[in-house]
Amino acid sequence: MGQVTDPPFRSIAIVGLGLIGGSIALAARERWPASRVIAVDNASVLAHAVSTGAIDRTCESIASLAGADLVVLAAPVLQNIKLLDELARNERLTGIVTDVGGTKQEIVAAARKLPRPLRFVGGHPLGGAERGGFAFARPNLFAGRPWIFTPDGDGGEPLKKLTVFVSGLGAKPTTVSAADHDRLMAFLSHLPQLTASALMDVVGSAVGRDGLSLAGQGLLDTTRLASSPADVWRDICATNRGDIGRALDLMIARLLAMRDGLAAGESIDAIFGDAARWRAELMKGRD
Amino acid sequence: MGQVTDPPFRSIAIVGLGLIGGSIALAARERWPASRVIAVDNASVLAHAVSTGAIDRTCESIASLAGADLVVLAAPVLQNIKLLDELARNERLTGIVTDVGGTKQEIVAAARKLPRPLRFVGGHPLGGAERGGFAFARPNLFAGRPWIFTPDGDGGEPLKKLTVFVSGLGAKPTTVSAADHDRLMAFLSHLPQLTASALMDVVGSAVGRDGLSLAGQGLLDTTRLASSPADVWRDICATNRGDIGRALDLMIARLLAMRDGLAAGESIDAIFGDAARWRAELMKGRD
Repeated sequence: MGQVTDPPFRSIAIVGLGLIGGSIALAARERWPASRVIAVDNASVLAHAVSTGAIDRTCESIASLAGADLVVLAAPVLQNIKLLDELARNERLTGIVTDVGGTKQEIVAAARKLPRPLRFVGGHPLGGAERGGFAFARPNLFAGRPWIFTPDGDGGEPLKKLTVFVSGLGAKPTTVSAADHDRLMAFLSHLPQLTASALMDVVGSAVGRDGLSLAGQGLLDTTRLASSPADVWRDICATNRGDIGRALDLMIARLLAMRDGLAAGESIDAIFGDAARWRAELMKGRD
Repeated sequence: MGQVTDPPFRSIAIVGLGLIGGSIALAARERWPASRVIAVDNASVLAHAVSTGAIDRTCESIASLAGADLVVLAAPVLQNIKLLDELARNERLTGIVTDVGGTKQEIVAAARKLPRPLRFVGGHPLGGAERGGFAFARPNLFAGRPWIFTPDGDGGEPLKKLTVFVSGLGAKPTTVSAADHDRLMAFLSHLPQLTASALMDVVGSAVGRDGLSLAGQGLLDTTRLASSPADVWRDICATNRGDIGRALDLMIARLLAMRDGLAAGESIDAIFGDAARWRAELMKGRD
């Protein structure tokens, strides 16, 4: 991650030490050993994080984060929105605040309505891994991956400092509107996740344990996302239901077209042809 | 693949040198160098196969395969069914015949109605790869993977010899009824394939080339199957439309339940919970 430079933030507080929060802690310590990393989570996660050296100090409550230069909200989206409100009620908090949630319109709208304005810019690191939780956190999770910011306005100084921060973690910062982010993610991330979970549930229920033992690489790959945690996804669904609903409608319509075309073959040919072309497009520059 | 033993078949004819047919040729030559491998396909595929040493001899027509001890039908399913009829009309053909198609009920039913009974046992090697075609064929494609036979009756001598043959190719032979095979594959193979292709088509159409450049590992994995060839899948859909239709109905119902539950979260929780448990079941012994 390059040479040691002045850290953009001398004290970083992370609320929620899951895969993303934990990986931010690990990457920040590696990049800026002089910065302090404080975390809020449940006792067992914090004990694990302290023992691995991922964080310097644990924190019992949000109130005691007031001195942090940067607060990263890394809980499920609806919790982040509540936390934002708590932070705004703490007059002593003057640092920059960001979040890492998978949807952006609701939290950006909530930030606008706070009783006291915060120096907040919504963010979303794209990456993720097969399994969530601190146990799977790693410092290179963001290496070379986009990190989207959705400033409400030009983002000012907070966006500038966050851009330096996530670049230091190895990510490629980029800026889009919250509405564009949510529409794009409904297709690139949320629909694939819901599809993978629905597929795994349908197939498992139909064939049972013995049937699954005959499954090949195709089912393994197509359902890799199906071990994702429900709590994170419940909040993503609730806060992006318009875009996700439209994406699901298109998916259902495509499956109905396939169903109607099973015997004749024309719609199968058309969908497979288009799908293979999009897949080739998706793989360009990645092989 | 163990030591050289007497080959179960001295001359093997393969009709259709795609991924499966080509891999059978390569694996058989490696295992039984004394056996002759003859193939029928279009001129350019045959030229490639001869140049790589995968086959000994090319063949212009089905009629000239009459002397083979084993004929493997490795074209799309509906073509295999037509080829079976042609073989039955050739009185000189006395060898064993099998196929490698992804559905079994229609070809087994067709074999029963032939003008002259053939020594036929339907088969299906489970495996596959991301891309079809002879260019991706490899001798270890079947290593450790199930190879399902669906004999019409006890299978007799042909099943015994085919069992020795596919074991020699590295596969694990197993026997189920054609009906059970098709129902199981509708869920383990056909539904994941149709889902992956529909998803890739929907996502690509919605976000376009620029949007796809932001896609992460989740979409890549979930749509890996979407480059599968339409001709193979058109025939699988046509010949297993009852079971695939029922599998698609269940998938559509699950997606509709998700759609209806986006705001409240209960159905998301339930489906994600069940999916994660089935995924853990699927991964048992594979990690």
